[in-house]
Amino acid sequence: MNDKLNKSIVSRDTNFAEWYTSIITKADLVDYSGTKGSIIIRPYGYAIWENIVSVLDKQFKSMGIENIQMPMFIPESLLNIEKDHVEGFAPEVAWVTHGGDEELEERLCIRPTSETLFCEHFKKIVKSYRDLPILYNQWCTIVRWEKTTRPFLRGREILWQEGHTLHTTREEAIEMTLKMFKVYEDFQRDYLALPVIVGEKTEKEKFAGAEKTFTVEAMMYDGVALQNGTSHFFGDHFAKCFGIEFLNRDNKLETPFQTSWGVSTRMMGAIIMTHSDDRGLVLPPKIAPIKVVIIPIGKDNDEVNVALKQVSKQLEDLNITYKIDDSDRSPGFKFAEAEVKGYPIRLEIGPRGLENGTVTLVRRDTLEKEDVILEKAGHFVEVRLVNIQINLYERAKKRRDSMLYFAESYEEMKKINETKPGFIKINWCGDVQCENKIKDEIGIKSRCIPLDDHEPTGKCAVCGKEGKCQVYFGKQY
Amino acid sequence: MNDKLNKSIVSRDTNFAEWYTSIITKADLVDYSGTKGSIIIRPYGYAIWENIVSVLDKQFKSMGIENIQMPMFIPESLLNIEKDHVEGFAPEVAWVTHGGDEELEERLCIRPTSETLFCEHFKKIVKSYRDLPILYNQWCTIVRWEKTTRPFLRGREILWQEGHTLHTTREEAIEMTLKMFKVYEDFQRDYLALPVIVGEKTEKEKFAGAEKTFTVEAMMYDGVALQNGTSHFFGDHFAKCFGIEFLNRDNKLETPFQTSWGVSTRMMGAIIMTHSDDRGLVLPPKIAPIKVVIIPIGKDNDEVNVALKQVSKQLEDLNITYKIDDSDRSPGFKFAEAEVKGYPIRLEIGPRGLENGTVTLVRRDTLEKEDVILEKAGHFVEVRLVNIQINLYERAKKRRDSMLYFAESYEEMKKINETKPGFIKINWCGDVQCENKIKDEIGIKSRCIPLDDHEPTGKCAVCGKEGKCQVYFGKQY
Repeated sequence: MNDKLNKSIVSRDTNFAEWYTSIITKADLVDYSGTKGSIIIRPYGYAIWENIVSVLDKQFKSMGIENIQMPMFIPESLLNIEKDHVEGFAPEVAWVTHGGDEELEERLCIRPTSETLFCEHFKKIVKSYRDLPILYNQWCTIVRWEKTTRPFLRGREILWQEGHTLHTTREEAIEMTLKMFKVYEDFQRDYLALPVIVGEKTEKEKFAGAEKTFTVEAMMYDGVALQNGTSHFFGDHFAKCFGIEFLNRDNKLETPFQTSWGVSTRMMGAIIMTHSDDRGLVLPPKIAPIKVVIIPIGKDNDEVNVALKQVSKQLEDLNITYKIDDSDRSPGFKFAEAEVKGYPIRLEIGPRGLENGTVTLVRRDTLEKEDVILEKAGHFVEVRLVNIQINLYERAKKRRDSMLYFAESYEEMKKINETKPGFIKINWCGDVQCENKIKDEIGIKSRCIPLDDHEPTGKCAVCGKEGKCQVYFGKQY
Repeated sequence: MNDKLNKSIVSRDTNFAEWYTSIITKADLVDYSGTKGSIIIRPYGYAIWENIVSVLDKQFKSMGIENIQMPMFIPESLLNIEKDHVEGFAPEVAWVTHGGDEELEERLCIRPTSETLFCEHFKKIVKSYRDLPILYNQWCTIVRWEKTTRPFLRGREILWQEGHTLHTTREEAIEMTLKMFKVYEDFQRDYLALPVIVGEKTEKEKFAGAEKTFTVEAMMYDGVALQNGTSHFFGDHFAKCFGIEFLNRDNKLETPFQTSWGVSTRMMGAIIMTHSDDRGLVLPPKIAPIKVVIIPIGKDNDEVNVALKQVSKQLEDLNITYKIDDSDRSPGFKFAEAEVKGYPIRLEIGPRGLENGTVTLVRRDTLEKEDVILEKAGHFVEVRLVNIQINLYERAKKRRDSMLYFAESYEEMKKINETKPGFIKINWCGDVQCENKIKDEIGIKSRCIPLDDHEPTGKCAVCGKEGKCQVYFGKQY
């Protein structure tokens, strides 16, 4: 096998950051642009994102959520209405100050998120309880002026969706917050094969302006966390700031309750950093743009061509996307490229196998080869795609579980953090001072208070006071 | 009928501009935002755009065109590389000068179009003839700092697609330019029911930096033109400016040839201003988010409810999107709302009709009513949707044709322009001075040299010199 291509990938155990960069560039997911901090998402990368969008968008619509398009500009005065929100976002927004040659009377920021715009709109369109609930979503690009950027993980331009909903009661809004949170968890488990940890953010780490923030925390191959989706309950806080009111059934004015929730292209980073290996990209079949690459060996061989047509037909009948690599390059090069690009399955069709009526099926996740009967190749592909999807999840879960620690004491926490990558769980009194101490001295932030298994089992690991809950800490991207 | 709602719409013959504004707001397509010049595309409006995107995106993909996502920011130095291009766009771009509290070293414009970004990327990824053609498309938002704005027609933020392709030969690039131009024409005729005039822009009116620009010109109800899609052939001009080269089959360096092409949410404006009337929005069935509204009369009537289920089932089986309006409001109000919203068909199910085994079908385009047999309601709906689609096109074409004029002389042109709305065709010598004279003195610009019927039939209407071609002039949005 001509694996020069694979060998151009840095080993992930040697240098994880360089490995990541080589995967995203060699697999043609991303190109760097002359605009610092902004990336080009190339067709192969964008096709993955389109698959993600397509699944989530269908899910949202089935729940009665409607898409809307808001302006990308927020006047400074509008951003300033909610204090916590502006403090949270103003330091990292891009400001438009000129239109053509003229200086603007009021500068505009490019949306870092759109709560303020939605609130302004809600105030205009909501009159009565009959107008509620409002369930809106927006697919768009947001901008955050990050100092250090990394493709998909932290960028100045982020493709995402942001849902914004408005409800008559607190209970209904909390229910919505949790429902969308569950949509994210299910999607990341079932489609992206990510064994995420779900929980609530601490007071310190929640979204600027939210009452509660729920988070989906994924753990990367190197044990570092990636916050991979959040769902916020705002209470009636924003609504009060923006003066949103509705007439209830008794014809009295009330303030509605609000949520927002979002996931972004960051999920692309999570897929790569969870499943891929030193030979290239590994994609969960369910979101892979091309599920199978077929490589004919001996192009001018009639038998091979007949078999190629037969297999193609089988895959089409099963609605499995594939591509045929019949270029002039050597089979070895094609095998290597198929691995770098992360096509879940490679089918090799050659004269030797056909003598026995078989073609060779290679799984990208395990690189296992098997000879399968030509007539049933489509059937085998279908089954293996399911196997790969499951295996990727199980493998990632096993690895993640091996990097979850529990620390009885502050000292133990410190020691684990110094020697082992991963998340460390402790009992916590709920006091922000203890959280700050860990951040300042150990250098890790709280990830979340897990939804399940959060009852305290002892005293706070930091101060020794009564434990209120368990909480995960860990380094993050 | 309670038609207070319809009557809140200004008559289009009295004040076309106000009529347009009342349609887009009463039909819930658009809301104005606090960001001057930017609009909110509300769910009903956005659903129309999603339908447009879905059809075009499938068409592009079937042609081997791939989607990509470029940065939204263009560094000033990159925009400056091509002289005509920067002169064409710099006066109307938005400039980002600050990120957070810091002033940027180089200011960034928000893309008004992305030729420069694509060229920079092409230079990096194109090495050999094997890499060509490159067929890319991007769905995104662009920004142009317009002084006067109107929803969908002229805005600071525009949702659009921009295709960018690169080819080994001039002929192949011209062929691509014309192929995409044809896609736009066909789509606007077959889906949007717009009888467009297609042709080439004059030298003066072509895209900044292009060798040739082909345009799809739609005529609105008031006789004013809307440029509704363009396809540009760049020759090798941009490629030379940006230093894009490839090794040909003989291993020699050559410069490739380039195209770009785009349509935008402006098409939404064209649909509205072509088909709608004084009772509200009228939508071509093929892109209407909801094709049928069913209004049960007498909600608690068992027979009505049984019939409602029967009709719903029929529509589902035919894959026709519908909604049931079973709210508490009066039937009259619902009828009026159905008209304002432009649902192509309204089905009224009431006890009186059911006595005869019929329901009432009302076409939105003609407002004709007919009683159709309950058992065959779905079938009737299916046929009427086709009838409506065709009728909208024919009606618009008839109206457009009645507003196409030919002027033998400059004086005749002037007179027609003063008295009649529409497009005026003349023989033209091809000299920009004659074109400028018409613009300066009569106040109308050239629309296009039509693809068919452009051979001159006499002398130039302005200067009397030999005619080179026929050309349309007209006012534009």
